[in-house]
Amino acid sequence: MRDVAIIGIGVTEFGELWNESLRDIGLRAGLLAIQDAHIKSRELEALFTGNFAGGRFIGQNHISAMTLDHSGMVPAHIAGAQLQVADASGGAALHMGFLAIASGLYDMVMVGGAEKMTDVDEAETTDTLATTADRQWEAFPGATIPALYAMMAKKHMQDYGTTREDLAHVAVKNHAHGALNPKAQFRSKITMEDVLGATMVADPLTVYDCCPVSDGGAALVLCPFEKAKKYADRPVKISASVIATDALAVHSRPDMTVMGSTVWAGKRALKMSGHKTEDIDIAEVHDSYTIGEIMALEDLGFAPKGKGGSMAREGITALGGKMPVNTSGGLKARGHPVGATGVAQVVELVQQLRGEAGERQVKDARVGLAQNVGGTGGTCVVHILEVV
Amino acid sequence: MRDVAIIGIGVTEFGELWNESLRDIGLRAGLLAIQDAHIKSRELEALFTGNFAGGRFIGQNHISAMTLDHSGMVPAHIAGAQLQVADASGGAALHMGFLAIASGLYDMVMVGGAEKMTDVDEAETTDTLATTADRQWEAFPGATIPALYAMMAKKHMQDYGTTREDLAHVAVKNHAHGALNPKAQFRSKITMEDVLGATMVADPLTVYDCCPVSDGGAALVLCPFEKAKKYADRPVKISASVIATDALAVHSRPDMTVMGSTVWAGKRALKMSGHKTEDIDIAEVHDSYTIGEIMALEDLGFAPKGKGGSMAREGITALGGKMPVNTSGGLKARGHPVGATGVAQVVELVQQLRGEAGERQVKDARVGLAQNVGGTGGTCVVHILEVV
Repeated sequence: MRDVAIIGIGVTEFGELWNESLRDIGLRAGLLAIQDAHIKSRELEALFTGNFAGGRFIGQNHISAMTLDHSGMVPAHIAGAQLQVADASGGAALHMGFLAIASGLYDMVMVGGAEKMTDVDEAETTDTLATTADRQWEAFPGATIPALYAMMAKKHMQDYGTTREDLAHVAVKNHAHGALNPKAQFRSKITMEDVLGATMVADPLTVYDCCPVSDGGAALVLCPFEKAKKYADRPVKISASVIATDALAVHSRPDMTVMGSTVWAGKRALKMSGHKTEDIDIAEVHDSYTIGEIMALEDLGFAPKGKGGSMAREGITALGGKMPVNTSGGLKARGHPVGATGVAQVVELVQQLRGEAGERQVKDARVGLAQNVGGTGGTCVVHILEVV
Repeated sequence: MRDVAIIGIGVTEFGELWNESLRDIGLRAGLLAIQDAHIKSRELEALFTGNFAGGRFIGQNHISAMTLDHSGMVPAHIAGAQLQVADASGGAALHMGFLAIASGLYDMVMVGGAEKMTDVDEAETTDTLATTADRQWEAFPGATIPALYAMMAKKHMQDYGTTREDLAHVAVKNHAHGALNPKAQFRSKITMEDVLGATMVADPLTVYDCCPVSDGGAALVLCPFEKAKKYADRPVKISASVIATDALAVHSRPDMTVMGSTVWAGKRALKMSGHKTEDIDIAEVHDSYTIGEIMALEDLGFAPKGKGGSMAREGITALGGKMPVNTSGGLKARGHPVGATGVAQVVELVQQLRGEAGERQVKDARVGLAQNVGGTGGTCVVHILEVV
């Protein structure tokens, strides 16, 4: 199996991009990655792209061909495929890109992710997002995604004494990080009082505990590691790429405060990379809701079970802390265009590992981990990246 | 790169499966493949599955987790991802499974495909299928998928003298094949008069020129070829797996009677397999509309451009002919549950190559080709299989 490197990254600003269609957004992210990789677009042999619900959001359900067509890559032989694994679509697209290069069949691949969510109304958005849960046994009976995460939060508070304030600390931290990210949807710092006093979405989660609805795109260029030095001064190696699956319905899991998919993907990824948790310098985790970050830190082994809430509270996961988490602002503040998120997490890690993260640079970051969750945890994709 | 083998196949009957949900259909196809491979389900490390529009047809858009959950495969580490590449979703899922084994990262993988289309009305179905075209530039202005294929047919008739009867011969042949396939949706032979006199869908295509709306599922078990002999007497080798992309909108192509994606994928696949067109004993091609089979035979090099219409007329592609095509009945008669089709084509080839195709067995079939198209040709996936 060949080692795989990332030699190019691109990400659009995230937000309400009303002047751009999905194909424009995807193209722009891709061009940024091509420029960053110093390659010609014709060197690309494939596009594997994450998109969650183009069929419902914009009536487009053939996204890889649409994007390649719009980008002027055809007519010419180029492979294209779309990964659709709920919020984990971007991470899954990277897994396919990883396999493509690792296998030896491809030598230069683009991994993309894009979503255009703001063309439909909020009811349609909520209904579409509920297709990431078990529609039959969760969403049809009335549970939306925020409601399911709220139940996880309640149970976590009940079982482990996690407080409402612990959740709020995650939001405050990630907004502070987002304020330093020029591409973030929210670039404003918020206070504990803002979070605690905000409109309730699903008790105990207020609107500041929830990620926004976003448009945006992200892209990566991959090649064999042995060839990466030709293109990049500091190629980043993908030292682990793992997908895992858990029960789709939250009520089917032995413990609703644990995402088995994250536990399994995290363990395998550490083993595959040869690292221990303490080797990880930075992480981007799936904080679509604040409780998601707390659970992720526990499930990945960064905190003992039940103690995840202490990490933001104690400043461990803030910029300047021992292990900064979601320096991009996370889904919470950078935004969450569903299919783009898993790729955007990796863009942030690469920027950090290259030392190009500007105001939010973590000093001497060498190993980073990205955790990308589908729905409420039915799927989890974990990648570990490093500069070697 | 490791050689990849198919050691297990499974397919449900295709049709209006009103008593089964998508998860039931997927599970049933998977269990058949597991039984056929003589493995235990716990030996599987991943499920890569094709599904086109679960989010619109049944409100489920996290299909890999839903299927693995329903099958009792979790809790336990297993990878899962869904490929969504319009009608080419099944073929794309097989490409990902191929990469997974070829890379060395996985040793036992299931590739699936399933679709449940009959839970929504016909208008919603037509509208959903139009998301495989370029929604913005084709479907919103009024062109449905049958209308686009009808235009290709008209142009083919105009440029090459292909006749209305040439199209009908494809339908008659594929229905005759389907009549021999116990899993086919249509098991009735039809006559030229039936086709020519049937209800018009989009001139010149009558209802017998168009594939039906179908429910169904199909599955494959893959492992490294070097280990395949442990499981199967006649393991089938995947000697080529190629995806290619063309302009999404038909009007953007230099010639609307040519699918560039098929031309490129076909050429690459032949090169990758080391075969010439004349080595191919059997083929399953994407006859969602009769003109599709005619164009596929030309684009793959089995007939000179413009002469594809002669192949069914002259009996070359019928059972007993020189190169039988769509012995399963094709999308036309076996049915076309969109995400399942690319996998079901390969199930048919494996049955033929193993000599287990019953009444529709092609004598001494040794090399087979599957061509799976997304939408009107924006994507094409070609696989070449052989017994060695």
